Amino acid sequence: MARTLGIDPSLDRTGYAVIDDATRRVIEAGVLRTTPRTTLPARLAELADALDELIDEHTVHRVAVEDLFTHYKHPRTAILMGHARGVILLAAARRGIAIEEFSATRVKKALTGNGHASKLQVQRAITATLGLSRIPEPPDVADAMAVALCAMNGEQAARR
Amino acid sequence: MARTLGIDPSLDRTGYAVIDDATRRVIEAGVLRTTPRTTLPARLAELADALDELIDEHTVHRVAVEDLFTHYKHPRTAILMGHARGVILLAAARRGIAIEEFSATRVKKALTGNGHASKLQVQRAITATLGLSRIPEPPDVADAMAVALCAMNGEQAARR
Repeated sequence: MARTLGIDPSLDRTGYAVIDDATRRVIEAGVLRTTPRTTLPARLAELADALDELIDEHTVHRVAVEDLFTHYKHPRTAILMGHARGVILLAAARRGIAIEEFSATRVKKALTGNGHASKLQVQRAITATLGLSRIPEPPDVADAMAVALCAMNGEQAARR
Repeated sequence: MARTLGIDPSLDRTGYAVIDDATRRVIEAGVLRTTPRTTLPARLAELADALDELIDEHTVHRVAVEDLFTHYKHPRTAILMGHARGVILLAAARRGIAIEEFSATRVKKALTGNGHASKLQVQRAITATLGLSRIPEPPDVADAMAVALCAMNGEQAARR
C-alpha cells in the first residue's frame, strides 16, 4: 500500500491529499489550518504536529510538494510560506521519506496541458482524472492532489 | 542559569550564540553549517538536529532571532532563509521556549546607534560591549550575539 502525500504549502491552510499509488484512490484529503491570531512559531508547531499525525497514520512513502519560487511578486507571503514549507520538508526528511518538488507551472501543465490554468480548471481536471464524485474544495486540496499525481506519473521534478 | 540563544538564520551557515543572562558571558558561539551539495530537506534536517542538540545542552530559556523581512531584494535567498527560519522557530516552539524576533535595523541601532551599521561595525561593537578578547568571526556569529543582546536588554521586538 504505497501512498503518496501531495502538499500545497501555506501558513494559513496547507492543502493535502493522500493517494494510493496503485489504485489512484484518494485515501484522505483536506486542509491543515493554523490559528490565525497566534504567533508564527506556534502556527508552525501546529502545522508540524498535524503533518506528523498525517504521515504516521497513512504510511506515506513519498511526499510531493509544490515549489514556491513563483511567488516573487508577493515576497512577504512567499517568505512566510517558506517557513511553512521548511517545516513540511523537515517532517518528511526526518522520517527518511522521499521528497519531490514540482513547480506550479509543471503541475498545471501535466494535469491540464496548460501551465497557466486557472484554479477552477485544475479543480475540474483533477475531478475528471481521479474520477471524483465532486470537485475538491477549497482549491488548495485540488492543488495537493495535482502535485501528488505529478509524482505518481513520474513527471520531471524541479531542480535547485 | 538563564541563557539566551541568539540566532542569525541562514541555510548555509546559521550564526548562533548562547549568552548567560546574568553574567553576560558568552557560553558558546559559532556557526551551524549544512552540507551544500545535498537536498534542501536534508539540509533542513541537519540544521534542526544541530539546533536541538544546542538547545538541549544549554538549557536555553529564550531564543532571539533576526527577522528576515528586509531581504526583499533577493527573494530567492529570502525564501530559502524562510525555510531555515521555519525549522529554527519550530525547534523552539516545540519546547515551549520563548521566541523574540528583531529586525536587523533594530539590532544594529540598539548596538551601534546606527540602524545601517556595517558588518565590521557590528563585530567591533559587540566585542567592546561583551568584553570579548577578539572579534567574532564570521560576522554571522557577531550578528547572533547582537540579537541575543537585544532580547536581554528588553528592546522592542518586531511585530507581525
